[in-house]
Amino acid sequence: MTDPENLVAQVREGDLRLHELEDHADADTAATARRLLIERETDTDLETIGDYTFPAEQAEPNIENMIGAAQIPMGVVGPVAVDGGAANGEHYLPLATTEGALLASVNRGLSVIDAASGADARVTKNGMTRAPVFRVAGVAEAAETVEWVTDNVEALREAAESTTSHGELIDIEPYVVGDSVYLRFAYDTKDAMGMNMATIATGEACAVVESETPASLVALSGNLCSDKKPAAINAVEGRGRSVTADVLIPGELVEQRLHTTADAIAEANTRKNLTGSAKAGSLGFNAHAANVVAAAFLATGQDEAQVVEAANTITTMDAREREDGTTDLYASVSLASLEVGTVGGGTKLPTQAEALEVLGLRGGGEPAGSNADALAEIIAVGALAGELSLLAALASRHLASAHEDLGR
Amino acid sequence: MTDPENLVAQVREGDLRLHELEDHADADTAATARRLLIERETDTDLETIGDYTFPAEQAEPNIENMIGAAQIPMGVVGPVAVDGGAANGEHYLPLATTEGALLASVNRGLSVIDAASGADARVTKNGMTRAPVFRVAGVAEAAETVEWVTDNVEALREAAESTTSHGELIDIEPYVVGDSVYLRFAYDTKDAMGMNMATIATGEACAVVESETPASLVALSGNLCSDKKPAAINAVEGRGRSVTADVLIPGELVEQRLHTTADAIAEANTRKNLTGSAKAGSLGFNAHAANVVAAAFLATGQDEAQVVEAANTITTMDAREREDGTTDLYASVSLASLEVGTVGGGTKLPTQAEALEVLGLRGGGEPAGSNADALAEIIAVGALAGELSLLAALASRHLASAHEDLGR
Amino acid sequence: MTDPENLVAQVREGDLRLHELEDHADADTAATARRLLIERETDTDLETIGDYTFPAEQAEPNIENMIGAAQIPMGVVGPVAVDGGAANGEHYLPLATTEGALLASVNRGLSVIDAASGADARVTKNGMTRAPVFRVAGVAEAAETVEWVTDNVEALREAAESTTSHGELIDIEPYVVGDSVYLRFAYDTKDAMGMNMATIATGEACAVVESETPASLVALSGNLCSDKKPAAINAVEGRGRSVTADVLIPGELVEQRLHTTADAIAEANTRKNLTGSAKAGSLGFNAHAANVVAAAFLATGQDEAQVVEAANTITTMDAREREDGTTDLYASVSLASLEVGTVGGGTKLPTQAEALEVLGLRGGGEPAGSNADALAEIIAVGALAGELSLLAALASRHLASAHEDLGR
Amino acid sequence: MTDPENLVAQVREGDLRLHELEDHADADTAATARRLLIERETDTDLETIGDYTFPAEQAEPNIENMIGAAQIPMGVVGPVAVDGGAANGEHYLPLATTEGALLASVNRGLSVIDAASGADARVTKNGMTRAPVFRVAGVAEAAETVEWVTDNVEALREAAESTTSHGELIDIEPYVVGDSVYLRFAYDTKDAMGMNMATIATGEACAVVESETPASLVALSGNLCSDKKPAAINAVEGRGRSVTADVLIPGELVEQRLHTTADAIAEANTRKNLTGSAKAGSLGFNAHAANVVAAAFLATGQDEAQVVEAANTITTMDAREREDGTTDLYASVSLASLEVGTVGGGTKLPTQAEALEVLGLRGGGEPAGSNADALAEIIAVGALAGELSLLAALASRHLASAHEDLGR
Repeated sequence: MTDPENLVAQVREGDLRLHELEDHADADTAATARRLLIERETDTDLETIGDYTFPAEQAEPNIENMIGAAQIPMGVVGPVAVDGGAANGEHYLPLATTEGALLASVNRGLSVIDAASGADARVTKNGMTRAPVFRVAGVAEAAETVEWVTDNVEALREAAESTTSHGELIDIEPYVVGDSVYLRFAYDTKDAMGMNMATIATGEACAVVESETPASLVALSGNLCSDKKPAAINAVEGRGRSVTADVLIPGELVEQRLHTTADAIAEANTRKNLTGSAKAGSLGFNAHAANVVAAAFLATGQDEAQVVEAANTITTMDAREREDGTTDLYASVSLASLEVGTVGGGTKLPTQAEALEVLGLRGGGEPAGSNADALAEIIAVGALAGELSLLAALASRHLASAHEDLGR
Repeated sequence: MTDPENLVAQVREGDLRLHELEDHADADTAATARRLLIERETDTDLETIGDYTFPAEQAEPNIENMIGAAQIPMGVVGPVAVDGGAANGEHYLPLATTEGALLASVNRGLSVIDAASGADARVTKNGMTRAPVFRVAGVAEAAETVEWVTDNVEALREAAESTTSHGELIDIEPYVVGDSVYLRFAYDTKDAMGMNMATIATGEACAVVESETPASLVALSGNLCSDKKPAAINAVEGRGRSVTADVLIPGELVEQRLHTTADAIAEANTRKNLTGSAKAGSLGFNAHAANVVAAAFLATGQDEAQVVEAANTITTMDAREREDGTTDLYASVSLASLEVGTVGGGTKLPTQAEALEVLGLRGGGEPAGSNADALAEIIAVGALAGELSLLAALASRHLASAHEDLGR
Repeated sequence: MTDPENLVAQVREGDLRLHELEDHADADTAATARRLLIERETDTDLETIGDYTFPAEQAEPNIENMIGAAQIPMGVVGPVAVDGGAANGEHYLPLATTEGALLASVNRGLSVIDAASGADARVTKNGMTRAPVFRVAGVAEAAETVEWVTDNVEALREAAESTTSHGELIDIEPYVVGDSVYLRFAYDTKDAMGMNMATIATGEACAVVESETPASLVALSGNLCSDKKPAAINAVEGRGRSVTADVLIPGELVEQRLHTTADAIAEANTRKNLTGSAKAGSLGFNAHAANVVAAAFLATGQDEAQVVEAANTITTMDAREREDGTTDLYASVSLASLEVGTVGGGTKLPTQAEALEVLGLRGGGEPAGSNADALAEIIAVGALAGELSLLAALASRHLASAHEDLGR
Repeated sequence: MTDPENLVAQVREGDLRLHELEDHADADTAATARRLLIERETDTDLETIGDYTFPAEQAEPNIENMIGAAQIPMGVVGPVAVDGGAANGEHYLPLATTEGALLASVNRGLSVIDAASGADARVTKNGMTRAPVFRVAGVAEAAETVEWVTDNVEALREAAESTTSHGELIDIEPYVVGDSVYLRFAYDTKDAMGMNMATIATGEACAVVESETPASLVALSGNLCSDKKPAAINAVEGRGRSVTADVLIPGELVEQRLHTTADAIAEANTRKNLTGSAKAGSLGFNAHAANVVAAAFLATGQDEAQVVEAANTITTMDAREREDGTTDLYASVSLASLEVGTVGGGTKLPTQAEALEVLGLRGGGEPAGSNADALAEIIAVGALAGELSLLAALASRHLASAHEDLGR
């Protein structure tokens, strides 16, 4: 029965469906059988996909219809000193990507930051959100519902928190659009990214809203959460961690290591990341923060689709004149909605768990939430390094051509 | 010399730097040495990260400072019939993710689409963009520069296309903000995602602009491209492939397989994906298209950071009454800026190349560009399935509670 | 001395400057002299501009360098029954505009609303905002400043409210971007639109922030207010009044008076106001709410430049089936940031004050704030009427052509 | 019959409706009767509204249900030298507003600009747009329709231009969202703002699309135009005139007249107008451009509701070091979608026509379009002056407090 060929035969004869194999065999055998089937139906050889090196059973919470694994090259950048609210000391950051030159660039940035005695970083806000949408008869009922919710936050808190041992309700923000009422629940989910926790807790609270008000639940997510979409509500109000990181780099270091000046970098940042993004109607005012966020997410088992909003970043670069006439570079990144966790989801998978170990952040922190805070701060410093390195490259190329201009 | 311990010793003694190992050993040995170092410095065991199963040399174009690989579970969904401009017939879609339930959900959607005789899909626009920013003295010079560019597109085309055997310049769109001039170059890059091609070609054209006009290049990317940021310019004008997919599902099928009605699904879509996203100030009018885009990108070796804009999707769901009184569900997704390729970048890596083989789309298409078009169309159908399945789940839960309401 | 020709001569001789005339003559004489000067310098005849019919002195708080007045045609629409949180009963709405057909269209909509027994309306949020920006050394100081502010809201409230007899501080929301800290102060400004009140109060609070934290004020407005710019922060969080209005129109009335069906109107609204606006990257999901807002603002002395954000509106239209098989039309508008007042600013000017009298809303309300609430609700109903009328016109044209289609 | 009291009586008896008065009396008598009725029904005295000084008949194309006029104070700022593509020489700009201090502020800015030998200005793009939305069966028909349109632009041009003696079709840009096809028509409407011209011409072209493709027109405006909504499509692609203006102000002048420095102004601009607007999710990157646009629109008879998108402005301020060590201020504004005309609409009304005379721009230009171009350029210079003056005020206040800081 648990022989892959046997399973293949059963699927071919219509006795089994492709997603039912795990009901009849262990996870690895099921994956093998499924791979065989796909190989035969598509006339392919999936040897390397099948050459994964963890027990398939470990991935059962993470995937269905498994045939194997994608292997994404992983490297490491750093070390860099981070002076954060939660992170402290020297850290290596593992990154998984297929984009050549990315790690080299981030590494160069980190090395300059380290030489400038490290970066500061702070989580300035924290809250995982879920925003159900309710139907009401009209604006009068909407106002009535909002009033009830505002007056009964404690009852809703009790319902929501009854579903979780860790999560805490922070706030419920109501929004009305005609006969739709949206309630944006925000939770402190500690070291978990917390989407599931927030969804389950909110579901329980919704039952109370439905029983006590005229409102009927239409969808447990009404897109004001807003999950996996680039939305201003996240950019403004935050989701997951709002985190900032910055560094002050002595002018000498800018010249020696980045081969340009603070003024040239600041100009490139203003024309590209501020004015250019403004003209583009962008929600992202940065050069390539998504590169670092995506690669860190992949390495550490975060939700890859959340890169969409997690990469939301404003980068600032300023030339600061010192009293001695030299000019330092002030550089910062501010990520509004970085959703990260060190427990749950993909963080338990073997390679991802090891990457979190490299950071010293695997599992729950002490106090609770501090590991996820630290992860957010270190990713922010990585993004800062990436911005610094790319803008310096642009500016130094420009300086070179400016020098040529003078030679005309 | 090529012994890992030897390399470790040299780094420890300061004779080598962490990123220089590949200069002194083969790629696998260098990765091993680097892993050893990180293990010792962070007091960790990186056994599974080191247990990658491809020659490290193959990943050299994709990563620096390699220590191993992240293994992301990969599964498969489908098959589904796609009637596209480029894709045709039944396809399996490989997806790599750590998000449990995702493949089950997409698979359910695909199965309903298939039962409804498949989805239509079309690439409606194609163009990889790069938008440098130039400095001019002021608006008078800006107008002068724009005029020169408009009058000399052919000269710029010649310069740009001199750098590439495949890419073709489609258009140059100028934008002026004070003393900054942005030129958005769009290219047909065929089966390559094409960022590098577009960047190199644009660099060559910029040299011409600089020599013939008063404009000085500040940055080869001025963020009107817009790469790896969620920007309205991409949502409106497209980047990579603009692709749409849709399906008409008979009412009977909606009831039997999705346990709800077209009206209930359409209501959930309107309140959540349209009105909710509108209120959220979102650039994404969908439920979770990013999940499918991210998982397909990971499986097939696309640039994971581009999920940010590639997931830009408007989902529509409508109830269409038939003459016989029954009501069908019309469902569509429109992705504005899906950047995909079947050659170059991460597509060459072993597991990723195999995933493209499953799709029958590895390498260049015939005619050129048709493989990338087909990949875009199939990903769009996958996203359609994900939207359908999730909205149906929301709507059926709602229907259930609506039935309870009636019983009050 | 107070003779206009005398003043003209002095300006011509360089003894007086154009804006200093009021220092040497009464307001009307100064305006006359200034008009004479402009007439001579531009070779024009400004007879009608000079033919204003109020004492120029009355306009001194509203304008400098006065030469006369623009006369904008004013009409009236209604009456319409409004069942609001503040507004109640039948109301006429005065509108000033130069756009032909606007009043006819709004009037048609109001007449249908009235026949459907009137509209409901509710102010769901109220708060005039001002958001100064401070400079700090970096993210560490930023976090420190935010913490101080969060812990000292009462001290800031005291400072802020010391400047005003009416205004009350509702909330202070902090935002950090690198070395910039933004504090968004929200006030209940009662029947005043309240920008000046909010600015003065915030200025006083800023002095406290500067004295107690390392933060230095850069600008009293840091654009997170956000005044006279279309910003998602207002669309999401509101500014001035957030107000909604709706109506349920029996199907029979839709057919008889609007010559179309609820389904056709709902379709036009979805494709145009929701999907079309989504694709356009818009912050406005409506047809022409700005027309009504601008015309009501002009008539009642509101700040015309605030139309930019005051017109921010989501319009929804749904077909609601009744048990008897007929289909009603549910229509709503939700304006996120309608800044209105019934005291101060342009509301004191003669024609504007009379327009407020027509509404029964001139001056302070009882309780305080209720007049401005009622004005917001009535403008919302006007906007609802405009949306209804235009969408019905589009839908009926479409129905007509649909009928022709059937005849093919 | 034409006696106002007689008309009032007829309305009261139900023999006439409020909007039918003009059918039974001349425009002034009708307005008088309507005013009497409103006065009696609302127990008010509308003396000043009724004290308008133009023949009511002149306003018939602009308003229905007229009761009189709103009188808005009008002043004048300038003169300022403008070196534009169309505007040239010294200009006074009339502004109508109720916002005290606005004209004083703009006037100060213009005076500094004039002292710096004036501003440059350029219209960089011109096109009035209208974007109908069509329904198709699905994405296959959508692709088919877009292909037909792309191949038949000349046929559509012929149809569109058959309706107008002045307007010229520039371009048709197609957009697909599922089963909706949007076609964005852009026209050169010369000296007219051109909305009506564009609408009528597009209507004619739509008939051709409907007869030659499977597409059915749902609405003549599908919101990708986008009229009277703040939309990225306008910010990116323009609507009406895209216009920029700038000035280079010697450092000495900045100090003497603005009491601050180029560096301080640039800092305020970056933190407020760029970074602050970025964080606010704004489509407006300026301080208060809407103030000048709204006031100029009111004075010159433009469409007041279009201020919503016409005020879309990016303001840049940079400190430019000179070789002699002093620092100049470079200031610019770029308005993406300024819809203006010098013929048609409200421009014919008496006070508005006189205001255009002050500018020397009443009626059609020579060549056609040059008057509207010049008006756009002068309004842009006015907006530049407003930005300059407000940012200088913020910066000088800041400098003052910075000086105090030093004294601590």
